Amino acid sequence: MEKRRSSMTKGMHDLKELKIPEATVSRLSVYSRYLTGVEEQGIVNISSGEIAEGVGGTPAQVRKDLAYFGEFGTRGVGYNVKQLNQEIMGILGLKKGWNMILIGAGNLGSALSQYRGFQTRGFNIVAVFDNDMNKVGLKLNGLPIYAVNQMAEFVDNNDISIGIITVPSEYAQDIADILVETKNIKGILNFAPVVLTIPEEIEVRNVDLSVNLEVLSYNIEKK
Amino acid sequence: MEKRRSSMTKGMHDLKELKIPEATVSRLSVYSRYLTGVEEQGIVNISSGEIAEGVGGTPAQVRKDLAYFGEFGTRGVGYNVKQLNQEIMGILGLKKGWNMILIGAGNLGSALSQYRGFQTRGFNIVAVFDNDMNKVGLKLNGLPIYAVNQMAEFVDNNDISIGIITVPSEYAQDIADILVETKNIKGILNFAPVVLTIPEEIEVRNVDLSVNLEVLSYNIEKK
Repeated sequence: MEKRRSSMTKGMHDLKELKIPEATVSRLSVYSRYLTGVEEQGIVNISSGEIAEGVGGTPAQVRKDLAYFGEFGTRGVGYNVKQLNQEIMGILGLKKGWNMILIGAGNLGSALSQYRGFQTRGFNIVAVFDNDMNKVGLKLNGLPIYAVNQMAEFVDNNDISIGIITVPSEYAQDIADILVETKNIKGILNFAPVVLTIPEEIEVRNVDLSVNLEVLSYNIEKK
Repeated sequence: MEKRRSSMTKGMHDLKELKIPEATVSRLSVYSRYLTGVEEQGIVNISSGEIAEGVGGTPAQVRKDLAYFGEFGTRGVGYNVKQLNQEIMGILGLKKGWNMILIGAGNLGSALSQYRGFQTRGFNIVAVFDNDMNKVGLKLNGLPIYAVNQMAEFVDNNDISIGIITVPSEYAQDIADILVETKNIKGILNFAPVVLTIPEEIEVRNVDLSVNLEVLSYNIEKK
């Protein structure tokens, strides 16, 4: 037991020292979701080839991505599904839950509020904020909708660390400014197609849906 | 004029031979959208530093990304905004328009059907398909909603080359199978959190919204 544990973490580096490419982090997230499904089927071990097939990648890519974190696998046996998934989830910061708020109760906000993939990974939307007084007081897929001027207080009283912005571009910076001023917010997921000015201590990730289409059209044209 | 033109394309490689990292392609898409805004302000030249500041990157990264395509810029003067944007848009396959259909008239489909960023980049949603007979015959933000069994014929009669899938996971493969059988479809943008089995000649791009949150939580934890 002692031996196995040490072989699983052999070569493990201090995460804060590692510079992992963002594309690798994205793929780790995909691997982990796939491994969760495999684990639910009761499968104990898995090869890099099987992971690659399951997620639509190559075995070499899978091995290279996992090598950033030391040697998880055993030659000939492959990876222990549960252990590998636990390691990846730890790396991704998914071992604790994250409380989030959603700002913008429009169509995209509504789609995200019922997106099944969030809750199962520990991302918990607690409330929705909107400046439309016709929506405030109602519910969005079971979540309470509050006014934007109640947001700062709510964030600090409810241990909210992530804000998801789905408001129109022209309001996004104002919303970000309020979030940044709170004590608890550590990250912002921004769906508004605009570059936000955010202090360095807060992480921002922009989801630009056009980028996905343009990578697709590039790949089509390249063929 | 002749000279300037040749200096703009010096070192330009055949795109089909180039292997450009996906992260670079994504950033080119972001640069291009930023340059379009700059061009609209009537600005003629721009430095890599200014581009970097505008999109929240570093000048070195911008220069490295653009270097894949040869030497666009002139030392001391920077890049000609219009010319650089045209080059990038050509690379991304944005010089012609793309006709698309959206499958799934739910919240996410509704959000995408009115997403302003698509149309301005030449991505044109022509129609929406759904298997809910209560929705068929109605409009979604001005777009006609048709039944899924009308889809294959519509794709081939209306020069549709991209399908955007926003149906629940359990239906996504069935929809993809129909699209793949058409003559015109070249690419699929898939929002359903499931790995689709698609023949190699069709490009697929999966948009997994959970991945974005997990990259964010990784970046927060790493701090």
